[in-house]
Amino acid sequence: VDPERIAIVLVRPSRAANVAAACRAMKNMGLSRLWVVEPKRWPIEREDRCLAYGAWDVLDAARVAASLAEAVSGSTFVAATSGRAAAGGWSPRRLAAEAAQRAGTGTASVVFGPEASGLLREELDLCHELVHIPTDPAQPSLNLAQAVLLIGYELRLARLERPSSEPPRRADAAAAGELERSLGELRAALLDVGYLDPSNPDRILTELRRLLARAGPTPRELTLLRGLARQVSWAGRIARRPAGTR
Amino acid sequence: VDPERIAIVLVRPSRAANVAAACRAMKNMGLSRLWVVEPKRWPIEREDRCLAYGAWDVLDAARVAASLAEAVSGSTFVAATSGRAAAGGWSPRRLAAEAAQRAGTGTASVVFGPEASGLLREELDLCHELVHIPTDPAQPSLNLAQAVLLIGYELRLARLERPSSEPPRRADAAAAGELERSLGELRAALLDVGYLDPSNPDRILTELRRLLARAGPTPRELTLLRGLARQVSWAGRIARRPAGTR
Repeated sequence: VDPERIAIVLVRPSRAANVAAACRAMKNMGLSRLWVVEPKRWPIEREDRCLAYGAWDVLDAARVAASLAEAVSGSTFVAATSGRAAAGGWSPRRLAAEAAQRAGTGTASVVFGPEASGLLREELDLCHELVHIPTDPAQPSLNLAQAVLLIGYELRLARLERPSSEPPRRADAAAAGELERSLGELRAALLDVGYLDPSNPDRILTELRRLLARAGPTPRELTLLRGLARQVSWAGRIARRPAGTR
Repeated sequence: VDPERIAIVLVRPSRAANVAAACRAMKNMGLSRLWVVEPKRWPIEREDRCLAYGAWDVLDAARVAASLAEAVSGSTFVAATSGRAAAGGWSPRRLAAEAAQRAGTGTASVVFGPEASGLLREELDLCHELVHIPTDPAQPSLNLAQAVLLIGYELRLARLERPSSEPPRRADAAAAGELERSLGELRAALLDVGYLDPSNPDRILTELRRLLARAGPTPRELTLLRGLARQVSWAGRIARRPAGTR
């Protein structure tokens, strides 16, 4: 999702400080296009500006609209965040996925209503989808900047992750054959040092294999293990010589 | 992820107000287990408590520890959040996915360092994985409560999305304190055998810790490792004696 194609729209924010803090959250997530609809006062006062620390460029570039309709008129897709789980409402993750698809040519707006009262009915009607942040019902309310941060986070991830699908668990897990080679050296060393029972060394070796395989060692880690095995083997062979021959 | 099996650990938080705000963010995401390591003052003062509005139960149930080692000793998995993208660091989403798998029976700790300075080297060494919140490099820093909120959000989604009936990856992961005890014996043995560099043994030990922690050893596996360490230590001490004294 090109961040230039995403606008954050704050409708009648209750406090200017919240707008400033929202600017910071936007900048944390690489967003820069802000609309403020019917602010109580504009520009916001100096003491509130400090909450936009480091994100004054976002605040200064914000555009003010007299209505939500005006703010979103240029958007091809408009989503409203809602404090309540609505039937058919989207998760932030789904919003991000859809925005990634839709915002390729147009722009998407994500609308945040007044903190206490929410959007008016006719404003909700302007929105194409409702998005609900799945907070815990025991404490559902987020402040404005937190809600912007979470939505921005999902939009950012959708941008960073696309188009590559879920990355593999780790890029550099060693092949199973490499693990076996290291286990072979470890087995020899642990026999040399008298840790494994020569009549049945593989019972415990199997447990070590499971442990290591579960971790999915990197080639580097297998190199460490082979170095460790060689050193243990050396010590074991010396230590276990009959006393007179050491 | 059962929220009872997730602990948030705040290390030397710079301001009590940040701890209170973090409690609110935890409660937003249904988390309730909080450790505070080396707080400047405890309990926190009334004027800061107000920032935990609605989450006083989380704040009042917080436990104080004198060290990070103490706070995480009962955890089977310990992740540290980092302000910097580290090679091999996990995303919050990956953390949540792994925690969902590992926390079936044990507990996971997510560690947040001091806001300005971050965790100490030896504290990072106690953590099994690093997690980085992918903020924009132009404005990377989040406040403590925001970082807790984002991690909590991912953990919550992992819980909501995953049927709770799904079996945990393993029944009986050992606690971090047990792993540290075994690593201590392994460290001594690998010094005895001349594998670790006495002037800097912990560099490689840190790699071994990560490898083992990734696997999530069982108590039985740690017993095997301690037996192995004792045998290696014995051989090392004999092998490295001056030749005439063997």
